[in-house]
Amino acid sequence: MTRERPIGVALLGCGTVGSEVVRLLLSQADELTARVGAPVVLRGIAIRRPKRHHDVPGELLTTDAASLIAREDVDVVVEVVGGIEPVRTLLLDALRAGKSVVTANKALLAENTAELAEAADASGADLYFEAAVAGAIPIVRPMRESLAGDRITRVVGILNGTTNFILSAMDSTGAGYAETLEEAGRLGYAEADPTADVDGFDAAAKAAILASLAFHTRVTAADVYREGIRDITASDIAAAKTLGCTVKLLALCERVVAEDGTERVSARVHPAMVPRNHPLASVDGAYNAVVVEGEAAGRLMFYGQGAGGAPTASAVLGDLVAVSRNLVHGGRGPRESAYADLGIAPMGETPTRYHVSMEVADRAGVLAAVAGEFAKRGVSISVVRQVGRDDGASLVVVTHTARDSALADTVAALRDSEFVNAVTSVLRVEGGTP
Amino acid sequence: MTRERPIGVALLGCGTVGSEVVRLLLSQADELTARVGAPVVLRGIAIRRPKRHHDVPGELLTTDAASLIAREDVDVVVEVVGGIEPVRTLLLDALRAGKSVVTANKALLAENTAELAEAADASGADLYFEAAVAGAIPIVRPMRESLAGDRITRVVGILNGTTNFILSAMDSTGAGYAETLEEAGRLGYAEADPTADVDGFDAAAKAAILASLAFHTRVTAADVYREGIRDITASDIAAAKTLGCTVKLLALCERVVAEDGTERVSARVHPAMVPRNHPLASVDGAYNAVVVEGEAAGRLMFYGQGAGGAPTASAVLGDLVAVSRNLVHGGRGPRESAYADLGIAPMGETPTRYHVSMEVADRAGVLAAVAGEFAKRGVSISVVRQVGRDDGASLVVVTHTARDSALADTVAALRDSEFVNAVTSVLRVEGGTP
Repeated sequence: MTRERPIGVALLGCGTVGSEVVRLLLSQADELTARVGAPVVLRGIAIRRPKRHHDVPGELLTTDAASLIAREDVDVVVEVVGGIEPVRTLLLDALRAGKSVVTANKALLAENTAELAEAADASGADLYFEAAVAGAIPIVRPMRESLAGDRITRVVGILNGTTNFILSAMDSTGAGYAETLEEAGRLGYAEADPTADVDGFDAAAKAAILASLAFHTRVTAADVYREGIRDITASDIAAAKTLGCTVKLLALCERVVAEDGTERVSARVHPAMVPRNHPLASVDGAYNAVVVEGEAAGRLMFYGQGAGGAPTASAVLGDLVAVSRNLVHGGRGPRESAYADLGIAPMGETPTRYHVSMEVADRAGVLAAVAGEFAKRGVSISVVRQVGRDDGASLVVVTHTARDSALADTVAALRDSEFVNAVTSVLRVEGGTP
Repeated sequence: MTRERPIGVALLGCGTVGSEVVRLLLSQADELTARVGAPVVLRGIAIRRPKRHHDVPGELLTTDAASLIAREDVDVVVEVVGGIEPVRTLLLDALRAGKSVVTANKALLAENTAELAEAADASGADLYFEAAVAGAIPIVRPMRESLAGDRITRVVGILNGTTNFILSAMDSTGAGYAETLEEAGRLGYAEADPTADVDGFDAAAKAAILASLAFHTRVTAADVYREGIRDITASDIAAAKTLGCTVKLLALCERVVAEDGTERVSARVHPAMVPRNHPLASVDGAYNAVVVEGEAAGRLMFYGQGAGGAPTASAVLGDLVAVSRNLVHGGRGPRESAYADLGIAPMGETPTRYHVSMEVADRAGVLAAVAGEFAKRGVSISVVRQVGRDDGASLVVVTHTARDSALADTVAALRDSEFVNAVTSVLRVEGGTP
C-alpha cells in the first residue's frame, strides 16, 4: 500500500506550535510512515524574518513562503502562523493548486471559511482545522464526522485558557480583575496585549467555527455576540459564590426558534454564572472543555488542554496524518456543510437568564416595585433573596428564561428606579437554577 | 455532487438500538441526504424471528439476513445484533462482497477484528465501529484519527454503565452488592443474567478494542486481564470513603516496559479506588467516560451516555454518514493499524498500587511484621493508618507502585500471617495517592 512518492509538507510558521510540529514530525517519522502508508517529509519551514531557530534544522528555513508552497514536491501546507494576511492569500493559492491545507488559524477560519472551502472544493484538496478550536481536544472531527448522523442542538464551551485562568484565580483568591490579569501575565498565561483573550475575540472566533459545524450554516466572527471579562468584579464572583456558582467565560451556540417560527442560530460569548455541580464549573486554569448536546446522543463533554505548543501540535499532526492518508489511499475529508443556511438570531431575541444584585432602600414596597419592573417586561422571577443591612438592604434576583432584550431593559429600568440605590452585579446564568 | 444512485442500507437487528436507527434514518432523511450527497435508503431490516415491530415499517422486515445483504441495491450493512455467530459469517460475506460495514458489536470486534479488517482490505470496503465502545461518546474516531499523529501512552475508562450504576449506588447508600444488583435489575440497569456486565466481560471487550487502537497492536478480549465487581463489599466502599476515594470498575490500557526493556501492552479491567477529585470519580450512574493520555496532547477526557437506544444509534448514524460519504465521494476510512505489534504484558508484571485493610492483633511488633511482608517483596509503602479498637486494631496500608504479582504475593502472605486476624479489603488504587 505504500506509494513510492513521499508526502511533502510545507510548514508556515515556527513559533511555539510550529517548532513542536517539527519535533513530532522528525522524532516520529517511522511511526507516521507506518500510519500513513508513505513517508511524510518536511520540505521547508517558512518564517517571517530570517533568524536562528535552534530547535529546527536550519537548512529547512526560508522567508519565501510562496515559493515553498509552490514547490512540486509539496503536497500539504501546514499553517501555524495566525492572522489574516498574508496567510489567507498563501492558503488560497495552495488550495487552488490542489494542495491540501491543515491550519490552526481560528481568526482566518472565522472570517474566510467559505472562501477557503470553495477553493478546496474547486481543486479537490482537503481543508482540516482541528487545532483551531480547543487545542488538543478532538472537537472539530467529532462534530464534523462522529455527530454527522445526529442533530446537534447546543454547544457550550470554555474555549479560552487565559480568561479561564483569570476567572479561576479570581474565584479562589477573591482578588479583583486588574491584579489577577497582572498575575496571569507574570505567569505567562496572558499576553502583553490581552485584548484578543479578555475581550472575547479569541473565543468568538472559535464559537463561529463550532456554530458553523453544529448547525450546517455559515457563521462568521461578526455573527457572534461578544462580551469579555474586563468588567467582572470581585463582587460578581462573590455574588456567584453566595448562590453556589462560579463565573466562566462561555461560548454558546444553540438553535433558537424566532417569533415567526423559523429556526435560527444563536452564537455568543459572554461571562455567566455556572452552578458548581455543572460539569463546566470544575474546568479550572488553562483547560478547555466543550459540552455538545445532540438530540440522539444526549449530552457529551470533551475536556483537555486548549492551548500550548505540544497539545496544539498533536491536533495538527492528527490532521496531517488524515490528509496524507487521503493522498495515499484516495478520497477526501468532509467538506464544508452549510446546506441548512439558518439565519442568525440577534442577541436581544436570544433566551437567557439573568442574575441581578442590587442595593435597595430599606422601606416598604421595594420588593413589589422591583418585581414590577421584571413583570412589566414579561420576565418571570425564579429566586429572590433579600438581606437587611444597616444602611439599607441588598436584593438578589435570579430570573427564569426570557428574551435577552427584556432582561437588559429591566436592568436599565432598575438602575433608574428610585427604590434601587445601585445595581451591583448583573450576570447571565447558565446550566440550571443556582 | 449528488450521485444518481442512492446508498442502500441493510440493517441487521431491530432491538432498542436498531429501532432508533430506523427512526433516525427515516425522520432525518433530508438532512442525511444533504450531508452525504446522496439519499440514504433503508432497503430492509433482518430480524431473527418474524414478529411485529410496531415502530418500524413492516414491509422492510425479513428473517433472511443473507439474502438482504446480498441484494444488489445494498451498499452498506449496519449490524446491531451482537454476539459472534451468525453475525460474523454475515459480516465477512458482506465485506468480501465489497459492502461496507458499520457495527456496534464489541464482542465480535474483540475476537475477530483481524479477520474482519482483512476481509475489508481485500475488497476495499469500510469497517466502522464507533458504537461498539462507550455508546454516543466519540472515542473510536478520535483515537483512530484525531490522535493519529500523537503517541498514546494510556487509556483509562469507565466503559460499563451497569457496574458503574451499581458502584455509584453502593457508594451513596452504603448498601451491599447483592441488594444493589437487585435494585439495578428492578430499575432496568441490569439484565436478568448480569454476568457480561458484573464480571467485566463487556468492559474487557471494549478495553481490547481501545488498546488495539491506542497501541497499533492486535489485542483481543483474551489478552485482557479481568476482574468484575461481584466481590466488592460494603466495607470495601467504606474503606475507600475513609481514604477520600470511591470505587470504580476501570478499563485500563497502557504501555508497560518489560524487564528486558521491550515495550508491551497492558490491558485490564478491575475495580479500583479512585480519589474523589479525579475526573473519573464524578462519573456517576449509567454514564461512561474515557481519559486518554497522549505524549503531546496531554490528558483528554471524553464523557457521555455509554448505552441506550438513541445514544448508540447516534454513533451508528455518524459512521453510516462517513461510510456513505466515502461511497459518494470516493476514498476509504482508516484501516486496521497493527504495525507496532507489541507483546501483551501479563498482569503479574504490570505496575499497580494496592490498598489493603486488615484486622490485626493489638500487640507490639504487628506493624513491623506487616511492613516486613511488603518490604520482603520489594513493595514500598505510601500510607499506613492504624486504628486501635476493643478487640484488636485495624491497619490500612496503601502502597507505592509495584509489580502486581509482588503485591498479590504480599496479600497472600498477610492472610497467612499470625499477626493478621483478617484481610478485610484489598483494592487496587488508581490516579494519585488517596
